[in-house]
Amino acid sequence: VNYREQGVTVTQTTPHQPDAAEQQAREQALTDEVVASFATSTSDRYRELMTSLVRHLHGFARDVRLTHAEWESAIDFLTRTGQKCDERRQEFILLSDVLGLSMLTVGINAPASEGATESTVFGPFFVDDAPEIPQGGDLAHGAKGTPCWVSGQVRSSDGTPLAGVRVDAWEADEDGLYDTQYEGNRTAGRGWQTTGPRGEYRFWSVQPVHYPVPDDGPVSEMLAAAGRRPMRPAHLHFKVTAPGHRTLITHVFVAGDEYLDRDAVFGVKQSLIAEFTEHTGGTAPDGTTRDGRWAQVEFDLVLQILKG
Amino acid sequence: VNYREQGVTVTQTTPHQPDAAEQQAREQALTDEVVASFATSTSDRYRELMTSLVRHLHGFARDVRLTHAEWESAIDFLTRTGQKCDERRQEFILLSDVLGLSMLTVGINAPASEGATESTVFGPFFVDDAPEIPQGGDLAHGAKGTPCWVSGQVRSSDGTPLAGVRVDAWEADEDGLYDTQYEGNRTAGRGWQTTGPRGEYRFWSVQPVHYPVPDDGPVSEMLAAAGRRPMRPAHLHFKVTAPGHRTLITHVFVAGDEYLDRDAVFGVKQSLIAEFTEHTGGTAPDGTTRDGRWAQVEFDLVLQILKG
Repeated sequence: VNYREQGVTVTQTTPHQPDAAEQQAREQALTDEVVASFATSTSDRYRELMTSLVRHLHGFARDVRLTHAEWESAIDFLTRTGQKCDERRQEFILLSDVLGLSMLTVGINAPASEGATESTVFGPFFVDDAPEIPQGGDLAHGAKGTPCWVSGQVRSSDGTPLAGVRVDAWEADEDGLYDTQYEGNRTAGRGWQTTGPRGEYRFWSVQPVHYPVPDDGPVSEMLAAAGRRPMRPAHLHFKVTAPGHRTLITHVFVAGDEYLDRDAVFGVKQSLIAEFTEHTGGTAPDGTTRDGRWAQVEFDLVLQILKG
Repeated sequence: VNYREQGVTVTQTTPHQPDAAEQQAREQALTDEVVASFATSTSDRYRELMTSLVRHLHGFARDVRLTHAEWESAIDFLTRTGQKCDERRQEFILLSDVLGLSMLTVGINAPASEGATESTVFGPFFVDDAPEIPQGGDLAHGAKGTPCWVSGQVRSSDGTPLAGVRVDAWEADEDGLYDTQYEGNRTAGRGWQTTGPRGEYRFWSVQPVHYPVPDDGPVSEMLAAAGRRPMRPAHLHFKVTAPGHRTLITHVFVAGDEYLDRDAVFGVKQSLIAEFTEHTGGTAPDGTTRDGRWAQVEFDLVLQILKG
């Protein structure tokens, strides 16, 4: 249709560009069609999840007017992120972490509750088959760093000590690398132990240091493009599981670390920061005589009682 | 703090559950913190993209109250989707397709414009190193199916025939499989040719059939959970590139196909549906004598002139 020949004054439209309202209606109709395709979902929850996902995903593409090149770049980014994953590396968890989705999911599912230790990100470095470490044993297992005595009590949010409960711990070495980041399937700086009769746990490991997230994957490219520091403040991971309680996934952070206010994965909470006391020589809490430098932290882990 | 002991009447809050407003504020603060972390982006566009992505991604998780198990399931799904990709399989494009994101991106970037052929999804089966097929040559190259003569004219949206322009075409065989879905790196049912002096293209291939998207990957699990049919209506893919014109990525769909109104990837447009005429024996348009059944379609490809 040639509007000019028909004597129509063309104001908001030209033959090569449908007007904005028409374009908007066409895009909305597509979103509605995709949402409708999930009406037959095998569960109400799946339909709810996918409907919201489609609306937000389409909303994003429409809001930013996603270009074909950007779409291609996103396909490539996600593909490489999946292909970077293996049994000892989880780049999609790292992506979720740096986008704050992990902390948001933590906050939705483990809202702060009085008396219980706060949760933080799980991170990409947990592995299932860590070794058992006896009370007072050596979790470092060759991980380099200043020896650090880690101890505390696991108890219920009602104050009861939790005996016989599994505490998993894992951390990077003094070079900022987890065991899984080395060649050769070594296990170091990770393990689990069972709490004693008063809910106590205690082991030797190494003093945590701040470190960059892995710099050899798509996520590090994203941080670079964002001009973001890839650093995580020094921390030790915990996972504590006890019957009748919400599983606690958290860290203890080292007080004074320069990256506490700019954690690449948004994981820091004030209540999770503890003093790591430094010593030289002398007698350690387990009665051993120490030669050089060593550190010490005490951190209690309080689990929230599950209702019902 | 025990409010009851202090004589405070607890109405909207209990020690174990912060009130909704407090929880909402905490979640919003996290989203704001993540958005702020992209303020240092190396380009304004990157900041715009990531800010919108974070807001929509977080909006999704908040709206559905994403559980930890669902988050884990999403991480696993995305990981497996990436790991299903290789040089001949692109599961993330397929995911984008079934979520309607591909068609939305097409619609944003190649809005319908009068005179030009409409665009549709690129799909996961294009490969870069397809063979050149001479005018009138055989693109099927062993792909099973009813022989089909495919021809038409490539022209500019101003009507000028486009000579010497590259036309790529690819399609599934009569079993609904692309060459890349077979073992052994075969090439069949794909190729490209250069248009003749009047913009003409013509080749033998096979009659397209409807087919299911690949059923051995995460995307097929999603379709099953959604109770969606995995079918695509019969079609042949085209990609046409010409200087000064927007690259055209489209299909020709077979009129009468039973899945035209429920394409798993939302790719059908009325203007892309054409009659595939069926014949038995006789003389084909290229002058050859045919023995059994064969089909024929004529489909012109009109490229939009780029402005500026």
